[in-house]
Amino acid sequence: MDLVLGDIANLVGGQLNGDAGIPISGAAIIRDADAGDITLADKPQLANKLSDCRAAAVLVPPEVTPDGVPFVTVSNVHASFAKIVQHFRPHADIQPSGVSAAAHVSPTAQLGRNVVVHPTATIGEDVHVGDGAIIHPGVQILPGSRIGNDVTLFPNVVLYESTVIGNRVIIHAGAVIGAYGFGYDTIDGKHRLSAQLGNVIVGDDVEIGAGTTIDRGTYGPTTIGEGTKIDNLVMIAHNCRIGRHNLLCSQVGIAGSSTTGDCVVMAGQVGIRDHVDIGDRTVLGAKSGVMNNIPADSSYFGTPATPDREQLLKQAAWSKLPEMRKQFKALQKQVADLSEKLNEAA
Amino acid sequence: MDLVLGDIANLVGGQLNGDAGIPISGAAIIRDADAGDITLADKPQLANKLSDCRAAAVLVPPEVTPDGVPFVTVSNVHASFAKIVQHFRPHADIQPSGVSAAAHVSPTAQLGRNVVVHPTATIGEDVHVGDGAIIHPGVQILPGSRIGNDVTLFPNVVLYESTVIGNRVIIHAGAVIGAYGFGYDTIDGKHRLSAQLGNVIVGDDVEIGAGTTIDRGTYGPTTIGEGTKIDNLVMIAHNCRIGRHNLLCSQVGIAGSSTTGDCVVMAGQVGIRDHVDIGDRTVLGAKSGVMNNIPADSSYFGTPATPDREQLLKQAAWSKLPEMRKQFKALQKQVADLSEKLNEAA
Amino acid sequence: MDLVLGDIANLVGGQLNGDAGIPISGAAIIRDADAGDITLADKPQLANKLSDCRAAAVLVPPEVTPDGVPFVTVSNVHASFAKIVQHFRPHADIQPSGVSAAAHVSPTAQLGRNVVVHPTATIGEDVHVGDGAIIHPGVQILPGSRIGNDVTLFPNVVLYESTVIGNRVIIHAGAVIGAYGFGYDTIDGKHRLSAQLGNVIVGDDVEIGAGTTIDRGTYGPTTIGEGTKIDNLVMIAHNCRIGRHNLLCSQVGIAGSSTTGDCVVMAGQVGIRDHVDIGDRTVLGAKSGVMNNIPADSSYFGTPATPDREQLLKQAAWSKLPEMRKQFKALQKQVADLSEKLNEAA
Repeated sequence: MDLVLGDIANLVGGQLNGDAGIPISGAAIIRDADAGDITLADKPQLANKLSDCRAAAVLVPPEVTPDGVPFVTVSNVHASFAKIVQHFRPHADIQPSGVSAAAHVSPTAQLGRNVVVHPTATIGEDVHVGDGAIIHPGVQILPGSRIGNDVTLFPNVVLYESTVIGNRVIIHAGAVIGAYGFGYDTIDGKHRLSAQLGNVIVGDDVEIGAGTTIDRGTYGPTTIGEGTKIDNLVMIAHNCRIGRHNLLCSQVGIAGSSTTGDCVVMAGQVGIRDHVDIGDRTVLGAKSGVMNNIPADSSYFGTPATPDREQLLKQAAWSKLPEMRKQFKALQKQVADLSEKLNEAA
Repeated sequence: MDLVLGDIANLVGGQLNGDAGIPISGAAIIRDADAGDITLADKPQLANKLSDCRAAAVLVPPEVTPDGVPFVTVSNVHASFAKIVQHFRPHADIQPSGVSAAAHVSPTAQLGRNVVVHPTATIGEDVHVGDGAIIHPGVQILPGSRIGNDVTLFPNVVLYESTVIGNRVIIHAGAVIGAYGFGYDTIDGKHRLSAQLGNVIVGDDVEIGAGTTIDRGTYGPTTIGEGTKIDNLVMIAHNCRIGRHNLLCSQVGIAGSSTTGDCVVMAGQVGIRDHVDIGDRTVLGAKSGVMNNIPADSSYFGTPATPDREQLLKQAAWSKLPEMRKQFKALQKQVADLSEKLNEAA
Repeated sequence: MDLVLGDIANLVGGQLNGDAGIPISGAAIIRDADAGDITLADKPQLANKLSDCRAAAVLVPPEVTPDGVPFVTVSNVHASFAKIVQHFRPHADIQPSGVSAAAHVSPTAQLGRNVVVHPTATIGEDVHVGDGAIIHPGVQILPGSRIGNDVTLFPNVVLYESTVIGNRVIIHAGAVIGAYGFGYDTIDGKHRLSAQLGNVIVGDDVEIGAGTTIDRGTYGPTTIGEGTKIDNLVMIAHNCRIGRHNLLCSQVGIAGSSTTGDCVVMAGQVGIRDHVDIGDRTVLGAKSGVMNNIPADSSYFGTPATPDREQLLKQAAWSKLPEMRKQFKALQKQVADLSEKLNEAA
């Protein structure tokens, strides 16, 4: 499947700058590229890293002009590079295989057209699955759940009773949707589980990462708005209402009954306390601990989370603190000396 | 299944204040309630939120008297509201179905009465399961484990060899009990796994959240005391001894050989280092990082965790730090001026 | 299976100090040891804990000489204690059972010699599994993966397409290797998933904890270097390159494209931002938040992470901050008084 650089330029409809006859045997990012590979540089800052790279050629967007290495210019560098990678490592087509005889599908479940159900998946009573769903092995769908069209559930995903999943949703391996909320009434020091009568409703085009858990609501739903993307090992507690087109990075934890607006971004390991509201388009820095409502269009970080500008001032002051402490002691001494002198003078 | 408000009052044995003939078509929390719904307000502070709510009526405890909306007063508002929700969305009764022929139960395993084992669950050699257990699909119980009465293991729970589970325990989907402890001897820079001869012992009435992991002890057990409730994605390391009636919120991590007393509460994302002891009834704030033993009846937060009062003083000082830094520079200048004046005067 | 202390000394080839006829009925760590047990004290600091311990005897290394309790001295106290524990609680030998008829193995998969595949495991098209592998129930190996020799995959592990696993690797229950990276192009406020053409490559002798997730690379591999040990609920994002012989403790999160050198240690709940490089042999304290590259042979902690020495100074200054704030106000007043006096004098 080896090509020459001219073939690559043709494959992606790009403009060649260099010798069309250079042989290209693979494609890899700058860090990994070996002799004979084509690589990509999607930002001008990467151009200087190319000098240390053994790649035979580089794919670039119009705003990057590398020095001393043949290049191919394209308008969408990532889509084009993906095409090249797929040429060298073609993805085996998995044929739709229908419903495996080794899957366990309740007779009362309803499956749409072109649904694939792998061995060992279980689909409970009164579950509806839309057209084109792919249900991997070990997926457990408990009774009464509703799955939209073109949904992919990767291996060992668990949907508890009455979970509702929109269209084109992707849920990665081991994610658990609809487990009981962590709500207890404590009577005489003993904790009694609260009602678990709600469910989880996941909007269209949501993606949920591996090992993530989203708990059911107490009386009504916990909801995830359409287009929201959730990374691995995230925890979303009971009764939360997550807006649309959020990005929630890995290991974020959101406590019960909190809400987010649309287009909110949370970096990794952020924690949100219960019953707070995060406004539209707000961005929370990594590891932030949010204790109060945050208005729309804000940028916060730290614990307790405060606006970026404020937090940066505090951190700057903090890093000067040991020095300031020394200077403070010197100043105390200086004032004491002054005071003494003045007393002597008096 | 629509009712009128008088039916609702009868259903929960409550005292009606308003028109008994108002039709009620559903039940939802204030945030979600629509016209025709009954909602609930369990605290006086919620009374003012009712004015923005479209609910036709509200369920309240005796200490709440809402204005301008019909209400039903009951002594236990949550139990009563659960009853109403269940009237409108009755939970399908899952019939005990016995041991599925598609489950994989070792001939040497012993199962109690009225045990339900779903398809694809596996139960290993010499496992004992008590009466009334519900073993969901994809649960894997490794050899030699002991399960008490009336236990529920949700889908894809894994119990490693020789795990001991008390009565009335609930373990949520994907939790892993008894994996190897993270203990290594490092010899010439290479890490060699330590002994993994212990197990995990879980007391009566414990509940364990989705995706939580509890590692086995090195030589003896890791133990979870009776009545303790553990949220999702919590990590409890090898040799830990967790007391009774603890509440461990989501994403808490407790390192090896640490212990907690009874009735300890840890908020989300708390981390506890190895070999520390947390006293009875101690409360740890969200994201705390605990580096040392903490006495009983304490309230700590922050990293390193210190008593609340101390931490609040530090945080208050910290938030004034940028201002103090400015004032400090001004004071330095003032003292320098004074000093100069004094020298001139001399 | 009861022994006398002389038998124990013989069993581990140790030197007996005390009465050889003392009966020994079990083995447990100091915290758990009961009358009749032998315990172990591997450090001199533990010697004083022995006085509160009911153990009948203690196993020690040469540098520990306990007082008032019979002891057996050995050169490798942990290996010897493990031998004693195994005498009292022998581990049931699990016979290699071959490939279960209730496993789902693709006809195009290739399995080595002495491979054990438990019921409900699935092995996809064109998967190669080396000799001596143990594939527990509920393990899902997707097409095109390559597994080395003597690998153990505990229950419900998921390997996505084209995962590569080295020799002698142990992966604990519920870990997910090769899920999609969390990379999106945001166009008009909507997030479009980036290419997912890479895979995960795990080196020889790696161990991966329960519930841990490692995402596939965008175009090429995410790699875990040989001998690296990863604890439970760790997240390693797409395109990371983790070095050899690292120790990554529980709940660590490493964002996309970051790299570590060899022999790096991260304590629990550390977070690493994307695209940073951590040098060889660097140690990161618990809960650190790393925002920038860190050189080799460093010891950092805090958020943002800074060198230990610096961080300790800052934390010391911080804990004095409330006191300093009081003193600062006193000093301001003193200077104001001085200034007034001086003006009066003038």
